[in-house]
Amino acid sequence: MVVGESLARLGRYLPRQIEKPFIITDETVYSLYGNLFPDAHILVIGKGEGIKTLETVSGLYDRLIQLGADRSSYIVGIGGGVVCDISGFTASTYMRGVGFGFAATTLLAQVDASVGGKNGVNFRGYKNMVGVFSQPDFVICDPGVLSTLEKADILCGFAEIIKHAAIADKGYFRFLEENREKALALDPEVLSGIISASVQIKSGIVNQDETEKGIRKLLNFGHTMGHALEKVYGIPHGYAVAQGMAYASGLSVQKGMLKKKDHERLVRLIRAYGFPEPLEEPDQKVWDALGKDKKKHGENLDFVLLERIGKAGVVPLPISECKTSPGLKA
Amino acid sequence: MVVGESLARLGRYLPRQIEKPFIITDETVYSLYGNLFPDAHILVIGKGEGIKTLETVSGLYDRLIQLGADRSSYIVGIGGGVVCDISGFTASTYMRGVGFGFAATTLLAQVDASVGGKNGVNFRGYKNMVGVFSQPDFVICDPGVLSTLEKADILCGFAEIIKHAAIADKGYFRFLEENREKALALDPEVLSGIISASVQIKSGIVNQDETEKGIRKLLNFGHTMGHALEKVYGIPHGYAVAQGMAYASGLSVQKGMLKKKDHERLVRLIRAYGFPEPLEEPDQKVWDALGKDKKKHGENLDFVLLERIGKAGVVPLPISECKTSPGLKA
Repeated sequence: MVVGESLARLGRYLPRQIEKPFIITDETVYSLYGNLFPDAHILVIGKGEGIKTLETVSGLYDRLIQLGADRSSYIVGIGGGVVCDISGFTASTYMRGVGFGFAATTLLAQVDASVGGKNGVNFRGYKNMVGVFSQPDFVICDPGVLSTLEKADILCGFAEIIKHAAIADKGYFRFLEENREKALALDPEVLSGIISASVQIKSGIVNQDETEKGIRKLLNFGHTMGHALEKVYGIPHGYAVAQGMAYASGLSVQKGMLKKKDHERLVRLIRAYGFPEPLEEPDQKVWDALGKDKKKHGENLDFVLLERIGKAGVVPLPISECKTSPGLKA
Repeated sequence: MVVGESLARLGRYLPRQIEKPFIITDETVYSLYGNLFPDAHILVIGKGEGIKTLETVSGLYDRLIQLGADRSSYIVGIGGGVVCDISGFTASTYMRGVGFGFAATTLLAQVDASVGGKNGVNFRGYKNMVGVFSQPDFVICDPGVLSTLEKADILCGFAEIIKHAAIADKGYFRFLEENREKALALDPEVLSGIISASVQIKSGIVNQDETEKGIRKLLNFGHTMGHALEKVYGIPHGYAVAQGMAYASGLSVQKGMLKKKDHERLVRLIRAYGFPEPLEEPDQKVWDALGKDKKKHGENLDFVLLERIGKAGVVPLPISECKTSPGLKA
């Protein structure tokens, strides 16, 4: 993981013997930054979560075969989470696996999707149903390419960033409070520091628990309620996670785990970063969606609750006990 | 790898917490031996090399989802090489990988396909183009199920068995000479010894070279010419490999690497095991097919030649130098 490296210097990270890698990227990234790519075979895929399918991967196999890619070829995924997921899976399965690396071009991919070695595609609408665990040789994070992202995409990254600080690092949380303006202005120095800190937290957790049996569940903070909100209201993932975090922290207060002032501090930070005002109270459809959560065990949901800023724990809760929402006003 | 274990005791090899595994098998194996399977969800796929496709794997994902398979589920492939390849790949990619094991039911799968951790499917007619390296937790080889195989299928196994002895173990070669009748009668004791010896040779080579950069190439003995003969004349893989070995050993004599009497000894063993009389001389179509070999480097083919019974080496040869065949009569 190289934070602060320019996309234009990607060529330096390729294995010495690779003269012409195969770059998988999407339309948006190619039109904005294609001029920075090294000499390569360029495979442009569409964009959006909708293309994360086996059909897209099959199309890539086809083009790799046509272009003569063999076992010694090298693949680089340049793009956001969707591109990284697809190109990592394609590289890991083409001829039983060729070498690959990423240049992550969204804040979310830089702090989240490119870390942890998960890749894969959706299948018949089920998210990430097909894939493998497989680490890229390198990930380049160029903060310079973030300036062309939409505000909602930037906030998707900041939702995960705030999450990392809230569950694992009080000092990092304070840094986010104190450097909010520069962070939102995408100041390269502050942003590089943030990306590095988030990558370190996520990879530290992932390395302890590659296959998500224990501590990795902490990364689910804000995501249990978040996924339900995203599904029911169709709001962007990051907004839903921000609301989910506020909700889970309120619930932590109600369960007597968290001091009210720490909850208020988290809510203040979320608002300060510009996330929309949260819903007053989730309605019945949200509870129904929670009841279908993939990670439910019998009647219990593994809810990630806060003990204090910088420390979280997993608490199995029956849905009825998650229901009395203290809301954000707690 | 457990050689000599009955298929009926498969249940003992499953992880303790697995109550009902998902068994992937083909029509033939299910109709003959389904009564020996442990309690399981049974997923029957068609049969033959033609079903080794991504479409078959997609169909298996569908059924796994319908049956509620999750990350803690367990898959067992029961069948020959095609079933092992498909079920290993499905297990390695479903939800980013679930546990899996094999019961290999053909002699070829027992001594070859189930060893080495390669799995995958064909893609648009290209063999094994998509897959991963991933080791099963166990492989059970029950010699008892081999009695229902056709003669040609048995010989496919023996071609690889003779290959293992010829390239790596003179004592094993002598064992095959001395125990031919019992071996061909599928005597359980002799056969278990043979399967164990072959598995040991193959896995010893594979462990030194998982990704086929060096010594693993020795396993290609008889396969360079064999693949060409298979393609041009449509003869069974094992017959083609047997002829390919006789050819390569003749070529070894011609290159001054091998004593003529060792070549004659190998040819005698091949004939004694009942392989059909070889062709007098490969015709032009065979040379054309050799010219398109996937593993060609520039003008050279990596030909595996014998130095003596039990020792082989890789020799890069221009196709023109492979051409003056000494034939089998050498």
